[in-house]
Amino acid sequence: NVLRIGLIPADGIGREVIPAARQAIEALGSAIPKTEFLDLDAGFEYFQKHGKALPEATLQKLKEECDCAMFGSVSSPSTKVAGYSSPIVALRKAMNLYANIRPVVSTSTKPEVDLVVVRENTECLYVKQETLEKTADGKQVAKATRVITEHASKKIAQMAFKIAEARPRKHLTIIHKSNVLSITDGLFRESVREVAKDWPGVTVAEQLVDSAVYKLFREPGVFDVMVAPNLYGDILSDAAAALVGSLGVVPSINAGDHFVIGEPVHGSAPDIAGQNKANPIASIRSAAMMLRHLGYDDAALRIEKAVDTVLVEGRLVTPDLGGKATTQQVTDAVLKLI
Amino acid sequence: NVLRIGLIPADGIGREVIPAARQAIEALGSAIPKTEFLDLDAGFEYFQKHGKALPEATLQKLKEECDCAMFGSVSSPSTKVAGYSSPIVALRKAMNLYANIRPVVSTSTKPEVDLVVVRENTECLYVKQETLEKTADGKQVAKATRVITEHASKKIAQMAFKIAEARPRKHLTIIHKSNVLSITDGLFRESVREVAKDWPGVTVAEQLVDSAVYKLFREPGVFDVMVAPNLYGDILSDAAAALVGSLGVVPSINAGDHFVIGEPVHGSAPDIAGQNKANPIASIRSAAMMLRHLGYDDAALRIEKAVDTVLVEGRLVTPDLGGKATTQQVTDAVLKLI
Ligand SMILES: CC(C)[C@H](C(=O)O)[C@@H](O)C(=O)O
Ligand SMILES: CC(C)[C@H](C(=O)O)[C@@H](O)C(=O)O
Repeated sequence: NVLRIGLIPADGIGREVIPAARQAIEALGSAIPKTEFLDLDAGFEYFQKHGKALPEATLQKLKEECDCAMFGSVSSPSTKVAGYSSPIVALRKAMNLYANIRPVVSTSTKPEVDLVVVRENTECLYVKQETLEKTADGKQVAKATRVITEHASKKIAQMAFKIAEARPRKHLTIIHKSNVLSITDGLFRESVREVAKDWPGVTVAEQLVDSAVYKLFREPGVFDVMVAPNLYGDILSDAAAALVGSLGVVPSINAGDHFVIGEPVHGSAPDIAGQNKANPIASIRSAAMMLRHLGYDDAALRIEKAVDTVLVEGRLVTPDLGGKATTQQVTDAVLKLI
Repeated sequence: NVLRIGLIPADGIGREVIPAARQAIEALGSAIPKTEFLDLDAGFEYFQKHGKALPEATLQKLKEECDCAMFGSVSSPSTKVAGYSSPIVALRKAMNLYANIRPVVSTSTKPEVDLVVVRENTECLYVKQETLEKTADGKQVAKATRVITEHASKKIAQMAFKIAEARPRKHLTIIHKSNVLSITDGLFRESVREVAKDWPGVTVAEQLVDSAVYKLFREPGVFDVMVAPNLYGDILSDAAAALVGSLGVVPSINAGDHFVIGEPVHGSAPDIAGQNKANPIASIRSAAMMLRHLGYDDAALRIEKAVDTVLVEGRLVTPDLGGKATTQQVTDAVLKLI
C-alpha cells in the first residue's frame, strides 16, 4: 500500500512552498501509507523553455501513476503570449476536478471568519472559448462564452451541501448575479435550489456577487458555506483571504470524483520568489486537505493542529503576516509539532 | 436658461433618497439655473403593475426633455420573471452612458481610501446575450456572451485617464483577468495601454481582478483610479464601498458624451424601505457629481462640502453608519449647510 503523490511546483514561490508541503507529509510517518513523490513539470517558465505549459507527460503521470497531487502556483505573462494557456485551468478541466474548496478561517486575527468557498471549477468563463473579430472600420471586437450547465451546477451544489451539512451552522449561501444574468446565473441558482431539496438540514440563503463581497468585508460572520460559479468563486476567495491576514495561509483542494489536487490559493509572487520568504502555511494546509479528502482524517488533523499552534503563537511567521521568519523556519516549526 | 432634471426613484429606498437629492439641488438656489423636475417611471414594482421595467415614455422624456437625470435603485425579482430585465442596465445602454464613475473616499473612517472606480458601462456580460439549450439527455446548458470591444475599451480608457490626470497622484490601475481571458481581457488591457500613450503624465499599473479585491482590503492606499470592464467594476465598487463605512455614502454617475445620470451605488434595500432610515448621502453626492459633470463646479462643491461636514461631525447619521438619524434629518442637516 503506497500513496503516490505528484508534485507540481510550477512557478515562483510554488518551488518553495511545495517542498514545504512535502516535508509536512513526510513528517507524518506511519500515520499514512508509505509515500512516493513524483516531480512533475508545468508552468509559465516551463512553457518558455519547452513551448508547453502543461506537458502531456505530466497529465499522463497524474492519471496513471498518482493517487493525488500538490500544485504550487503559476506566473502569468505580462502580455499575451501566443500558445500559452494557464496550466492550472487546463489541469482542473482535464482531470474533471469540478470543485475548488477553499476554507477561510481566522486564527488569531479579527474579525472572526470561518467560512468555506465552494467554487465550481470547470466552466463559467473558464471554458476559454474566445474569439476576436474586426468590424468594417477595422476595430477589434472580442467575445468570450460563459457556460453554466445544470450538470456541473448540481455537482458543485451536492459537494457544497455535503460540506455544509458537516459543519455546525449548516448554512449555505448561493452566490450569483441573476439580476443581470438571468439565464446563466438563473440556471446556477435554480440548480442549487433543486439540490437543496435533498438536504433539508441545511439552511439556504443567496446573495448577489457584488453584495456578497461587500457583506464579506462588513459582516463576514454571516457566511458559513458559499457556493459560486467559477469566476465569482475566484474573486470571493481572494476577498475572504484578505480578512484572515494573508493569502499565504489559505489552502484549497481541486476535487473530482476520482482525483484531488491540493493547491495554495496564493499566486507565484515573483517579487519574493527565491528568497525563502514565502509563507508555506497555505501549501501545508492544502496537503492536509488533500489527505483528508482521501480519508486520512487523523493525518490531516495532525498537520492542521501543528499549523494552528504555530499561527496562534505568532512568534514564527513570515513577512506577509508581519513576521521575520523564513519559509524553512516556519516549516520546521510546523514539522516539530506534527 | 432652465435645467431640466429627470427623477427616476424606481424601487425601495430609491423613493426616499431621490427626493433628498432633489431637495439638495433645490437648496442651491441661484448657484445653478432655474430647475425643472420631471418624475419618471421605471423599476420592478412598475413592471409588476404595467409589464414594463423601463417604459418608452421614460426613455423618450429623458432624450427629448431632460438635460440630466437622477436614478434611485431597482429591486430584483427573487426568481426569474419572464419579460423582466433590469431598467438601469437598459438605460445605460439606451442612452450610451458608457462610463460609470464611482469615487470612494473615506472621511472619518480608517483606513484612508481615496479612489475612483471607472467602470465600463455598456458591454462585458451586461450585453445580456444569453441562450438556454438542452442536451440529448435533457439537461440544461446556459450560455452568455461577454463582449469587449476596442471602441468601448478606448472610450472608457480616455475617461479614466482624464479623471486620473486631474487628481494629485495621477495614477491608473487597469483591472483585468487576462491570465484566463487572454482575448477579451487582453483586448481591454491593450486598448487601455494604447490610450495611455496620449497621457504621459499618468502612471499606469495593472492588477488581476481577484488580486485587486484582495489588495483593496489590505492596502487600499495603493489605488488612485481603477479602470475596469463592467462586471469587475461592479464588484470592485462594492468592495471599495465596504472600506468607507457604508454603501450608503458612495455616489456615482453614468456618463456619456451627451447625457449624465446620477445614481447612488447602493441597492433598493427592501428590508428598510419606507422607514425613513435610508442614508440619503449617496444620492445627494450623486446629484453633486451630476452637476459637476454638467460644468456646475461651484454648486457641486457646495453640496459636497455640506455632506462632508455632516459626515465628519458624525452626530447626525443614519443606522448604516451606526447612528439613529432619519433620512430627512440627515437631509435637513445637509440642506442647512448648502
Ligand atoms: C492562476 C489563475 C488562473 C487562478 C484562477 O483564476 O483560477 C488563480 O487565481 C486561482 O484562484 O487559483
Ligand atoms: C442593479 C444592478 C443591475 C446594478 C449592476 O450590476 O450594475 C448594480 O449592482 C449597480 O452596481 O449599479
